[in-house]
Amino acid sequence: MVGQLPVSPLALPLPELPPIAGVRMATAATGIRYKGRTDVLLAELAEGTNVAGVFTRNQCPGAPVSWCREVLSGGTARALVVNAGNANVFTGAAGARAAETTAAAAAATLGTQPGQIFLASTGVIGEPLPAEKIVAVMDALKADLTADRFAEAACAIMTTDTFPKGATRTARLGGVEVRINGIAKGSGMIAPDMATMLSFIFTDAAIPAPALQAMLSKGVENTFNCITIDSDTSTSDTVLLFATGQAGNKPTQDPGALADFRRALHEVLHDLAMMVVRDGEGAQKLVTINVEGAVSHASAKRIGMVIANSPLVKTAIAGEDANWGRIVMAVGKAGEPADRDKLGVAVGGVWMAQNGGVVPGYNEAPVVQHMKGREIEITVDIGLGDGHATVWTCDLTHGYIDINGSYRS
Amino acid sequence: MVGQLPVSPLALPLPELPPIAGVRMATAATGIRYKGRTDVLLAELAEGTNVAGVFTRNQCPGAPVSWCREVLSGGTARALVVNAGNANVFTGAAGARAAETTAAAAAATLGTQPGQIFLASTGVIGEPLPAEKIVAVMDALKADLTADRFAEAACAIMTTDTFPKGATRTARLGGVEVRINGIAKGSGMIAPDMATMLSFIFTDAAIPAPALQAMLSKGVENTFNCITIDSDTSTSDTVLLFATGQAGNKPTQDPGALADFRRALHEVLHDLAMMVVRDGEGAQKLVTINVEGAVSHASAKRIGMVIANSPLVKTAIAGEDANWGRIVMAVGKAGEPADRDKLGVAVGGVWMAQNGGVVPGYNEAPVVQHMKGREIEITVDIGLGDGHATVWTCDLTHGYIDINGSYRS
Repeated sequence: MVGQLPVSPLALPLPELPPIAGVRMATAATGIRYKGRTDVLLAELAEGTNVAGVFTRNQCPGAPVSWCREVLSGGTARALVVNAGNANVFTGAAGARAAETTAAAAAATLGTQPGQIFLASTGVIGEPLPAEKIVAVMDALKADLTADRFAEAACAIMTTDTFPKGATRTARLGGVEVRINGIAKGSGMIAPDMATMLSFIFTDAAIPAPALQAMLSKGVENTFNCITIDSDTSTSDTVLLFATGQAGNKPTQDPGALADFRRALHEVLHDLAMMVVRDGEGAQKLVTINVEGAVSHASAKRIGMVIANSPLVKTAIAGEDANWGRIVMAVGKAGEPADRDKLGVAVGGVWMAQNGGVVPGYNEAPVVQHMKGREIEITVDIGLGDGHATVWTCDLTHGYIDINGSYRS
Repeated sequence: MVGQLPVSPLALPLPELPPIAGVRMATAATGIRYKGRTDVLLAELAEGTNVAGVFTRNQCPGAPVSWCREVLSGGTARALVVNAGNANVFTGAAGARAAETTAAAAAATLGTQPGQIFLASTGVIGEPLPAEKIVAVMDALKADLTADRFAEAACAIMTTDTFPKGATRTARLGGVEVRINGIAKGSGMIAPDMATMLSFIFTDAAIPAPALQAMLSKGVENTFNCITIDSDTSTSDTVLLFATGQAGNKPTQDPGALADFRRALHEVLHDLAMMVVRDGEGAQKLVTINVEGAVSHASAKRIGMVIANSPLVKTAIAGEDANWGRIVMAVGKAGEPADRDKLGVAVGGVWMAQNGGVVPGYNEAPVVQHMKGREIEITVDIGLGDGHATVWTCDLTHGYIDINGSYRS
């Protein structure tokens, strides 16, 4: 599909992604589903690389997710293999065998154990993954491993994405500068035909696996877990964080020492999450929803996600209609504490409704202008407490119907 | 909007709705929002009419919902006033006053108390309801009250509906035949600009209010509460059941004696609910989703509703693609007990997937044919227990985006 869809009007350029010491990559074309493009990524990781991961909450996850969950307990990694075009989801025992076959081939080629190999697959679901086509290119991938390949990697993992996604930061850790690179794919929180949201973060920092895991788990909560395209939770969502330990810092788990790294990691996760929303299927507008005055932060986030998932809110935004009535409806259906007579709604910084009713004589012109833009900001004041959260989504357009109503056929 | 949208291809004809003893109706045009059509209904109910009601679970309900909840405790009713075009939602203190004004005018005109008057409003939200325009036609409505007006009533309460909705049944109760008529409006589980789902059921049976309420509450669970157009829960959803007691049966609360009435009431509720789904915004296909093998009936219903609300499932159906992968994704995201390796999915009676994988060599031709039809049937076997449920929805099409992306502007 890549190349067939017009590039999202919200696309951002891929930043320059510098090499990360201890990471070498190669891409290849297996022909499993796509013609004339790369569709498999091998990332070799230096000995001593620690790893953390978070995965979909969908109760019917794909075989690669099950594989990663199992090997993650070891806390170390020597390689990552990602294929695009076939998600290896709902493929039964054959799917598990395809994962084992791929991991065994990568381990043999790189001279390590299968338990050190991490896997991710993205693409059509319910079709057997022909692992032999990945195995067939493994030697060529190994021969081609190079340090400076992040941009190629970001392209090789795309499915319905209309632009490659990457982010990079540096941080100070234990007196040295460490680097963090991340790449992601996803054009919907999910598009299960072409499942789904994958992200891989690489750093040269030396950080023990438990500290990595804690930072990653916390980092995704306000980034990847605060975005939604269409409310559908993928069977393949995977975020992996690899730390090669080549930067020369002394390994540390001290939260204070890790503060700057945590900041940089959060920024990478945030950048990638925003790029995924910006590539939402059919998206024409990026929507930021701030909820304040809720009874708790968790309540604010739940309210925000219900607003962000409401088809009626999203179609109104597509129609450039600052329809605060639909926002109020969404607040009310969230099931969280709310009082209709205390609610306020602002669009583009202009309060249209306060204390349960329209603000008489509010200035409509800047609101109309704001709704015509590419980036829409909505603020909802629940009026009950101090809980706040920000979530991001896109509008719901004819493009979404086009992509999903005729994808497979 | 009525007349501007093409009639749904799933529309059913309005059945002949006979008079109900103790019910007289009149409709009029207030001009509040629509031109050249009726938009207000007055239904006068005989003295001694008992009433039951169920309302939206949205925490930001409209003023008429709050009004009805309060007066429902009396258990008796003398009139119903419904207006279309303005929902009187999120209108603050002015909205409550508009409801009081309307009820007071109806009560004075009919010589009863405001606490005997039930109200429902449907239409745009966030705009003050000019109750004086309803009050202005009250005398004319009273003068025009007639027994045989159900078809006109079904038309007067429409908003974005493309066809009027009604159902009728008879039942045996205490040795006599009683009648039940119902009318409904709704073109989405909600379209909050034009909120929303309203239904009014009338019977000449003599049944005490507590028994009426029990039967109505139970009846909506497997009918109106099992349909969804777009997952958005309206601020105005209202179902009221009026029993005039004019049929001549001896009032009874005995469940055995009420069995045939309960059957007929359920059929009326079911018919009306199906008509609402058939008029779903942009709907081209009616979708029946059967879930079986869940750990409980409640679990089956929750799984069914998540499938029915999935934009990816609904767009696949619009594209006539029997995409069982998206159905599996929806089962997994429901958060209910499920095991991917026990799942089965059938479309049009053909099992495409069983025990967690595609059925090798299943006959695709009848599935392809089925997906081209107007009525789609999906069965999901969870494989864990005996819980089952059936829910109904429609497909998600460009028509939905057209209607909701450009409605108000």
